[in-house]
Amino acid sequence: MPVIECVPNFSEGRRPEVIQAIARAIDSAEVTLLDVSSDADHNRTVITFSGSPEAVGEAAYRGIAEAAQRIDLSAHDGQHPRIGAADVVPFIPLREATLSDCATVAHRVGRRVGEDLGIPVYLYDAAAQRSDRATLPQVRRDRYEILRETILTDPTRAPDYGPARLGTAGAVAMGARQPLIAFNVYLDTKDIETAKHIARAVRESGGGLKHIRALGLFVNGRAQVSLNLTDFRVTGLYPALEAVRHEAAKHGATVIQTELVGLMPQQALFDAALAYLQLPPETDSLVLERRMGDLTGDYRPIWFE
Amino acid sequence: MPVIECVPNFSEGRRPEVIQAIARAIDSAEVTLLDVSSDADHNRTVITFSGSPEAVGEAAYRGIAEAAQRIDLSAHDGQHPRIGAADVVPFIPLREATLSDCATVAHRVGRRVGEDLGIPVYLYDAAAQRSDRATLPQVRRDRYEILRETILTDPTRAPDYGPARLGTAGAVAMGARQPLIAFNVYLDTKDIETAKHIARAVRESGGGLKHIRALGLFVNGRAQVSLNLTDFRVTGLYPALEAVRHEAAKHGATVIQTELVGLMPQQALFDAALAYLQLPPETDSLVLERRMGDLTGDYRPIWFE
Repeated sequence: MPVIECVPNFSEGRRPEVIQAIARAIDSAEVTLLDVSSDADHNRTVITFSGSPEAVGEAAYRGIAEAAQRIDLSAHDGQHPRIGAADVVPFIPLREATLSDCATVAHRVGRRVGEDLGIPVYLYDAAAQRSDRATLPQVRRDRYEILRETILTDPTRAPDYGPARLGTAGAVAMGARQPLIAFNVYLDTKDIETAKHIARAVRESGGGLKHIRALGLFVNGRAQVSLNLTDFRVTGLYPALEAVRHEAAKHGATVIQTELVGLMPQQALFDAALAYLQLPPETDSLVLERRMGDLTGDYRPIWFE
Repeated sequence: MPVIECVPNFSEGRRPEVIQAIARAIDSAEVTLLDVSSDADHNRTVITFSGSPEAVGEAAYRGIAEAAQRIDLSAHDGQHPRIGAADVVPFIPLREATLSDCATVAHRVGRRVGEDLGIPVYLYDAAAQRSDRATLPQVRRDRYEILRETILTDPTRAPDYGPARLGTAGAVAMGARQPLIAFNVYLDTKDIETAKHIARAVRESGGGLKHIRALGLFVNGRAQVSLNLTDFRVTGLYPALEAVRHEAAKHGATVIQTELVGLMPQQALFDAALAYLQLPPETDSLVLERRMGDLTGDYRPIWFE
């Protein structure tokens, strides 16, 4: 039974009734709603859900439709760059499914969103139809206020589905990709420039670590380095955090706390633990619940007091 | 359905045919054999198996009987202190079982081992009948060569089951306890005294961390701090390793590698990762497979390339 995941980001993190309405719309399809994580500073919500490719596609459509009705991008502010009410909608393979299966879902949902909702759709990553849409930053290069103009005239801004025109719902970046980890690092300073310097140094586009995207933001009264780990098996949480700490030290800053946005694969946490503990990587096969599951089929966590 | 675990330590880590014979004897009962980990330097093997309390008790008895036939303690050498061929046999509750259930199994198996195999049995921890047997180190205070004499005359060495006399199989410490993590830390020095100093500083009995036992050994050509974490929810891998690194630095030594002996609960690895990553402790509820399992019943790990 194929299982895929969808992790849409919506440009609303402050009005609970809006967030709940979108979550309900998603949940009204035959999916498992896994998480709803909102951030008021970013004015953004990440919803995670899973199920069959068909059900997940339907749920994604309903969430996008609800968001389009409820969120007016022309009135939206927040720390995070965005292009739409439903800003990013990625599909991720989990079990017995491939990136190609997820790209098919992205195309199918994208077409419906473009044609039935009149929302421009940009297909990215494994769903991209153009080489200049291979990555999300390329697609999201122009934030809503800019895109509203450039979509009318710039051929590189021509959507894959839907009209070349932005309404109050903006546009949606829709794609297929491997899981991403959204990990925010809070520093012991209020200086946003420090966070920006660190972000530029650690991210791949700045000559830093591969598969790391980073932004420097001001959140909750502190400087924050907001990270996206786009391939945690190559660059995981351990090297990512070590790099941030290293760069922060150059600015006389330290990490006081971190947070995860949405969910993360178990393997990412195991990899970080094994790296920190200096254990051989194959030690994850010595996890009790994993060994019991492999031999009995019962993978349930065991609770010890 | 109650599930318990047994993690016997046998005083054989060099002869594969002996280790395999003991594993086969255990596996001949209705249990799930989870792991067999041997260490030639320690001349010791840890076998982990699980199942119903009745089956686990039966398997433990068969393993002890096989070890008694195959291992002659009077000819045994190795880095680790020991009292018997089957040296330590702990029972641990996993699902729908309590420490008390495990103590009952320890008593039942202990009586059979004492009466039918003629091997002295010392009940410890949650199975102890005497306050001076609350901890394993108390029970294992006299190694085989010493115990062979003291058991004849010292009333504090009177076994709970079996004769007050040691044969070539020695004695067995049998108990009920919570899970323990056996974690070895290799230093970049050959000086065993360094490892011993570090062990004395970090262990609870030396005024160090609670629920930490430690020994300094020489293994694989290096100094090794051998740790037992007897309550990882109170003192986990992160504070334990931080303490070892801190003490090692005082001696100009660093940790080059670590190893796990046997299995460890998933939660221990999660706790270590969250501590290192400076994430809030409740972040383990944001693990994808855990969240999916909680909502769908499917806790299987998801493999990402």
